[in-house]
Amino acid sequence: MSASTLTIGIDVGGTFIKAGLVSGDGALVERREIETQADGGFEHVLGRIADVAADLAQAADPRGLAGSGRATAIGLGVPGPMSHVEGIVHRAPNLAGWENVPVRDRLARRAGLPVTLENDANAAAFGEFVAGAGRSARSLVLMTLGTGIGGGVVLDGRLWRGDFDSAGEIGHMLVAIDGRECPCGQRGCLERYASANAVAERYAEAMPDAAPTAAPPPAELSARHVAQRAARGDPVAARVWNEMAQYLALACVNIQHLFSPELVLLAGGLIQAGDQLLDPVRRHFDRLSWRIAPDRPRIELATLGGNAGVIGAAALARGLA
Amino acid sequence: MSASTLTIGIDVGGTFIKAGLVSGDGALVERREIETQADGGFEHVLGRIADVAADLAQAADPRGLAGSGRATAIGLGVPGPMSHVEGIVHRAPNLAGWENVPVRDRLARRAGLPVTLENDANAAAFGEFVAGAGRSARSLVLMTLGTGIGGGVVLDGRLWRGDFDSAGEIGHMLVAIDGRECPCGQRGCLERYASANAVAERYAEAMPDAAPTAAPPPAELSARHVAQRAARGDPVAARVWNEMAQYLALACVNIQHLFSPELVLLAGGLIQAGDQLLDPVRRHFDRLSWRIAPDRPRIELATLGGNAGVIGAAALARGLA
Repeated sequence: MSASTLTIGIDVGGTFIKAGLVSGDGALVERREIETQADGGFEHVLGRIADVAADLAQAADPRGLAGSGRATAIGLGVPGPMSHVEGIVHRAPNLAGWENVPVRDRLARRAGLPVTLENDANAAAFGEFVAGAGRSARSLVLMTLGTGIGGGVVLDGRLWRGDFDSAGEIGHMLVAIDGRECPCGQRGCLERYASANAVAERYAEAMPDAAPTAAPPPAELSARHVAQRAARGDPVAARVWNEMAQYLALACVNIQHLFSPELVLLAGGLIQAGDQLLDPVRRHFDRLSWRIAPDRPRIELATLGGNAGVIGAAALARGLA
Repeated sequence: MSASTLTIGIDVGGTFIKAGLVSGDGALVERREIETQADGGFEHVLGRIADVAADLAQAADPRGLAGSGRATAIGLGVPGPMSHVEGIVHRAPNLAGWENVPVRDRLARRAGLPVTLENDANAAAFGEFVAGAGRSARSLVLMTLGTGIGGGVVLDGRLWRGDFDSAGEIGHMLVAIDGRECPCGQRGCLERYASANAVAERYAEAMPDAAPTAAPPPAELSARHVAQRAARGDPVAARVWNEMAQYLALACVNIQHLFSPELVLLAGGLIQAGDQLLDPVRRHFDRLSWRIAPDRPRIELATLGGNAGVIGAAALARGLA
């Protein structure tokens, strides 16, 4: 398959389906974004995915010549536990009715193209590896900091899925024995200390009177507001933000000692804070980790934003055709 | 290289050099063990390693025919940070004078055989993978529980060394923010809570009067004694032992979520405690980790004992010749 061959990447979220045509060097040459309409259920959403795939296949080869511009495969990124080998999504928290659905083979039949199914955070990690902040790295671990914390692991140029397709669940690394309860059933998960939701929640807990009794309720004080208040000198916001950075740094130390990657990337909504996030994470990492080791990963922000999953899924599909 | 070809595995410890001839299916067909005489310095120990290699090469091919019984390569396992690619040991804590020594190429010249250099815990992990408790696993993570805690990671049949040759440093995973000081410079390392030394030390801290004022001093109350006292109903020993198991289980949870391996193996001196170790680690793992997931690693004891490093080093050398 030549570098000029195009593949289709599709990133299915709870609110939007993002998709694109991606070249062999990871360039996004066409982009689409449509509403997921997740309430419509699996068949409805599958139809919308197939429609956007057909639209992009048409854009790749507008004259229908099946020539060199043809899109040859589809990479599909979906949140939630799945079997990559079987092409089945076991459960997708934000997609109604996605329970043990054979989405890979169903989409392949509809689209007439081979499909590879991938966890969305894995796809984002691979996207950053091929075309983003990880382009020059041999290996990287990416953390997506949003409602929860997801992750993806690229080792020596290959996505590492694990024996059970559940590697890189960075958000459920335990950072405290018998710590804060997580909806996942564990206690002390990283995402209960360092996700956007955790930041908002911990601030609301520390400042029960800071939230107006009317809307917005405390749980919806966003992490962005906490960041802004921290920047303006609110000591409680600064403490919550600092603790979040400290736990992310602890996660980076553990990633360092387990994987020994060149690079740890921070991605997701929280990185809109830019250096206000990156600086304290790096500072805590310097404090928590080995001072003398020559082998510490760099910690950087991801650069592809919402396109990482589309580009990564498309890149992962390149082996198929 | 046929399965009947022999390679030499050598595991250099602070007290003994263990070595052997290993067949293609991981069987140890000849075994040697000599004193390291580590105080003699690098050149002295290198000479002893070369001697045992020559002895084993002779045993493989007693008639000097360079025939099918010839040993074709050497795998050398050494503790301490190193560069696998350059073949240099940066520092070996228990080997005097081993500082940035090009041991791979020096030994290759002496022995007239290609040599691969490996971290000793990595070699042990690979040994268990090819011929021990990990034979049927696709991927495994091994923890060696001794004076400290080392580790090795085998992913999909390949040893994962990391971009900086320092993957699998399980003992320096952080299990507590600003926890117990570690000689490595960090605070809160796993090995400060769950190594044999940590068990003995924590018991001595909790029972300052339990140790006789004469020898043995508190720091030398071994983990074995703590295990025995716990088994006899000593509540402090039982608490220390239980906390050790809890921290090992936390490490298993983090290994599960980061690597998603089929298997986590416990190895090293502490596993002489057998089920007294394994049962509480598994029980805490059941408690700390996801209850519903089908994708939890099995936790088992390693089975090759002191031969794992020899067998693994020899197996890693098989690609060389």
